[in-house]
Amino acid sequence: MTCILGVDPGLNATGWGILDVDANSRAHLHWGTIRPPNGERSLRLLAIRDAVEDVISRYSPVVLAIERPFNHRNVHTAIALGQAQAAAMLAAASHGLSVHEYPPRTVKETVAGDGSASKDAISQALVSRLGLDSLDASADAADALAIAYCHHLMTPAGVTVV
Amino acid sequence: MTCILGVDPGLNATGWGILDVDANSRAHLHWGTIRPPNGERSLRLLAIRDAVEDVISRYSPVVLAIERPFNHRNVHTAIALGQAQAAAMLAAASHGLSVHEYPPRTVKETVAGDGSASKDAISQALVSRLGLDSLDASADAADALAIAYCHHLMTPAGVTVV
Repeated sequence: MTCILGVDPGLNATGWGILDVDANSRAHLHWGTIRPPNGERSLRLLAIRDAVEDVISRYSPVVLAIERPFNHRNVHTAIALGQAQAAAMLAAASHGLSVHEYPPRTVKETVAGDGSASKDAISQALVSRLGLDSLDASADAADALAIAYCHHLMTPAGVTVV
Repeated sequence: MTCILGVDPGLNATGWGILDVDANSRAHLHWGTIRPPNGERSLRLLAIRDAVEDVISRYSPVVLAIERPFNHRNVHTAIALGQAQAAAMLAAASHGLSVHEYPPRTVKETVAGDGSASKDAISQALVSRLGLDSLDASADAADALAIAYCHHLMTPAGVTVV
């Protein structure tokens, strides 16, 4: 079935999550957090790109679902997020993944039924809807899983996750 | 001597310029404009990255000087510029170039002596200071050459261009 890579981009911490739904409609999850070294921005972007490429090599997702920077009051913050997003998108596009962008509000509404859901509510929704015992992911990795799950739910051919 | 790649990033058009100053202090210039195809943003970023990598392979610059998005009123425009910038920075960083960012005002002031110089004034300054007959570059490519020349002028070890 479809293996989806979700990414919550950021220059300081980029969360990633793999949602792989097998032929029996069971969800297999993997996740992690990329923490680029301090220093020159181009090297931080390179660290994000290389780490996302490593995740792609390990799990072979066919789709990247990624958060779209949105409505930031601080233009410098928005640019930094956009650049971290670009690093992940370039890793995906150069490996042939299709790329889908979702605003944070869409992810929250689709996954937790509330466009302004808290991070805790998002995690709880993932635990409940994916039938997990718990989810010990970082906030960034949980967001990335939520973005992947949002894409899964919004894909017409998406199978039901039990 | 130092071969500098200047880039004026943009999703619709990314200008590039090579400024190569030889042992006799003569400047050799090359330039062009990258026009990514319409379509998905990740593929446009990939086109920019691939084209910048192609320029790096052809001319072997050791430095990337690039315009830093600055003071944009429209956050979406700023994000798009930042992403095009990220694509060029990733091409450079993955080939070992050092990366230097300059705000547009610094480039204009350094090259033309006026932080709000027009595009024509920048072109005229390049023609005059680099001893060219004329400069038939696109506005984006001329901006890219100006950014490369700005870096050259701001580098303490920079030799005099005749």
